[in-house]
Amino acid sequence: MKTFLSLLLFVGFITLQAQNDSIFIRQLYDEALENGQAHQNLKVLCKSIGARISGSKQAEDAIRWGKHLLKSYNFDTVYLQEIKVPKWNRGTPETAWAENEKGEKLKLNILALGGSSSTNGLLTAEVFVVKNVDELKTIPADKIKGKVVFFNEAFDQKFIHTFSAYGYCYPLRGDAPNEASKLGAKAVIIRSLATPTDNYPHTGVTHFDDSVKVIPCAAISTQNADDLTQWLTNGKVTLKMEMECSVSPDVPSYNVIAEIKGKDAKIITIGGHLDSWDTGEGAHDDGAGIMHCIEAFRILKKLDFKPQHTIRCVLFMNEENGNFGGKTYAENAILNNEEHIFALESDRGGFLPMGFDVVGSDEQLKLVQQHDKLLYPYDLLKIKKGYGGVDISPLLKKYPTMMQMGLVINSQLYFNYHHSAADVFETVNKRELELGAAAMATMVYLMDKTLE
Amino acid sequence: MKTFLSLLLFVGFITLQAQNDSIFIRQLYDEALENGQAHQNLKVLCKSIGARISGSKQAEDAIRWGKHLLKSYNFDTVYLQEIKVPKWNRGTPETAWAENEKGEKLKLNILALGGSSSTNGLLTAEVFVVKNVDELKTIPADKIKGKVVFFNEAFDQKFIHTFSAYGYCYPLRGDAPNEASKLGAKAVIIRSLATPTDNYPHTGVTHFDDSVKVIPCAAISTQNADDLTQWLTNGKVTLKMEMECSVSPDVPSYNVIAEIKGKDAKIITIGGHLDSWDTGEGAHDDGAGIMHCIEAFRILKKLDFKPQHTIRCVLFMNEENGNFGGKTYAENAILNNEEHIFALESDRGGFLPMGFDVVGSDEQLKLVQQHDKLLYPYDLLKIKKGYGGVDISPLLKKYPTMMQMGLVINSQLYFNYHHSAADVFETVNKRELELGAAAMATMVYLMDKTLE
Repeated sequence: MKTFLSLLLFVGFITLQAQNDSIFIRQLYDEALENGQAHQNLKVLCKSIGARISGSKQAEDAIRWGKHLLKSYNFDTVYLQEIKVPKWNRGTPETAWAENEKGEKLKLNILALGGSSSTNGLLTAEVFVVKNVDELKTIPADKIKGKVVFFNEAFDQKFIHTFSAYGYCYPLRGDAPNEASKLGAKAVIIRSLATPTDNYPHTGVTHFDDSVKVIPCAAISTQNADDLTQWLTNGKVTLKMEMECSVSPDVPSYNVIAEIKGKDAKIITIGGHLDSWDTGEGAHDDGAGIMHCIEAFRILKKLDFKPQHTIRCVLFMNEENGNFGGKTYAENAILNNEEHIFALESDRGGFLPMGFDVVGSDEQLKLVQQHDKLLYPYDLLKIKKGYGGVDISPLLKKYPTMMQMGLVINSQLYFNYHHSAADVFETVNKRELELGAAAMATMVYLMDKTLE
Repeated sequence: MKTFLSLLLFVGFITLQAQNDSIFIRQLYDEALENGQAHQNLKVLCKSIGARISGSKQAEDAIRWGKHLLKSYNFDTVYLQEIKVPKWNRGTPETAWAENEKGEKLKLNILALGGSSSTNGLLTAEVFVVKNVDELKTIPADKIKGKVVFFNEAFDQKFIHTFSAYGYCYPLRGDAPNEASKLGAKAVIIRSLATPTDNYPHTGVTHFDDSVKVIPCAAISTQNADDLTQWLTNGKVTLKMEMECSVSPDVPSYNVIAEIKGKDAKIITIGGHLDSWDTGEGAHDDGAGIMHCIEAFRILKKLDFKPQHTIRCVLFMNEENGNFGGKTYAENAILNNEEHIFALESDRGGFLPMGFDVVGSDEQLKLVQQHDKLLYPYDLLKIKKGYGGVDISPLLKKYPTMMQMGLVINSQLYFNYHHSAADVFETVNKRELELGAAAMATMVYLMDKTLE
């Protein structure tokens, strides 16, 4: 009888606890949806500061703005963490056009890839088209030498999630210029890593080995890639291109960090990245993620949440071309003997949140999935193993058994905007952004309770 | 031993069957995403025909276009089903402005509600504001008589799904003019049933009892509603409004129907509605639903699907102001002794599909949920009881034990566009539309197999 009563009490306690959780999560969503500040804050970041590549004046402005905003919310502490970042400069806007044997011209919408060199005046070379790096490796070097290699693999639209299509095509941007340079190519142009067929070129970082000559490389719009493909079926095409890219010495920069102190010193990190590419306004990438984190913190504070563990909101710098924000954060964590137990990143845009990717063991996944009934009313239905985020990945190397997560967002439109002039504030819906912030706050709340 | 072998064979058969289903569904998605025609077809409907209210020239054009398109896909049969529809005319564009006691003017963005009467020249009356119909009923009639009653309840942003906010505010549009007229109001203006604060008025049908005088009634934009609220706090406000709405006699119109014949004569219906309001382009409401259905049929046909039951694609006419398409379809079903076993509607826009609402018993819900593993890769995660659709609801009255479903779509942006000039082709994403079509085809395939 005593056992039975104990059991009844225990079941009662669990039920009450679930009710309390449910009520608190509902309050998080109410605050986000009714008094949300994320959309207005994103507008300031996008419209008053705009594109903010590492090392730029705008990146400095964004750091000041982020620190000021976090301080205004009266968290326990707000501070800057110094890092070093590369400084790559696009220079004056690029121009490029193709010419066929009849002397007809096709103007190209073009953006140099991050890491590209200058053309040193007008570059002229014949275009040689390949699908991708694998195909390039089947071509003899003498056919490549002195040419502009055009990598032209399109997104496979059959992937249900566009990040899969992006991942598949990623070597076009990340590796192709390096591989073409090894074979003596004069320059590289790539079909933009983008979902739709339109006129926006999409930039992003590329990598050259130390032993390989850095050559001019740029993305052209998907529409231009289709046009150029058509031209190439009719004969020889010459590309004329002028870009003034340059690299300056590394400069100091900062991660911006806020904390709500816990009852213990174990650390939960949530973050996104404050830098963006130097085109558009970095609205989805990753202004939205920054807002998810800041707003999640604001809501938790507003509801007077007292965490068990110390929770940290980190606006990482330099995710786009070096990840020195993420690397330095992880290095300092070790140097300072910090005990990190969980990290959560938002870096997949400001669209509808759909769940969480979990980086961890089966047991860690179960720790999250046990809360699925609490997440169901908010359509956070995808709780599965997956990817966390670039910024928090160095932390995983230092703390290999810690759990990480990435906020899963509807990906269908993300690569319409990513790294292009189209990534502007107007494409971020207020409610979808607010739902993302509430989802982040919810997971911080649940993991703070769940993890010891 | 024999039993064990039979069991092994049975398990093997079930596993093989699940694999076949999985492969076929994957092929449906491949066809939709790689060779999809829904987006291009929607462009034609929106840009070449545009808004298509029942009884209009454009509605006739849409019927011809729909029949022609369905015929081009070589389904077993394509035909028109005659119905009668009301014909309400907006007349020349409405004008309205507010004036305060200082003589200052505030121009209002306004759209008459479907069913409104004309103002017969310039109407002038004092504005009396109430929140909603409940509040109106607490006001003495002498305070309402001769006034323009302004119903000003905003969407409750705390609802996670915007259809809930819409449902809650629906009486503002559906019932408020009727109730205000009973109390002697001269006219009614309502805050638009819309999620964002912006400058678009959103129309829609309203209803007057036979015994109640039809009065002029219109929606103003949410921004105007906020502005007017501000003005009303400072004193008396007069509204001036001119609208030339009229009603013509009912006219003949048509549902457009295509069939793929089954091995038996039992009928599965999928549908959306071909009519729209007379503003914007009816892109999300319900051009997208029409495309979901037509494209689902095209894909199934392309893959040479031979259904067990006869499947019908119905482009219903007159959902917006009378539902005579849906009613006539149901009446004819009974007259023709048809055996209907399942109906599925898409009328919630062209955004990301997320699952299916099931109208039916617990057992019927389970029949659908048994397929959840097949739907998981496509993010069709919400399989729950809910609402089917306006067009197919009369069928449910005639066949009360049949199962119905509604395609569940991400609702966050739907009421930014619904029934307004903002509902245009450009707001429908190609991939999201294609995923919706594939989802519809998938459910037709699964239910054709599952239902006897």
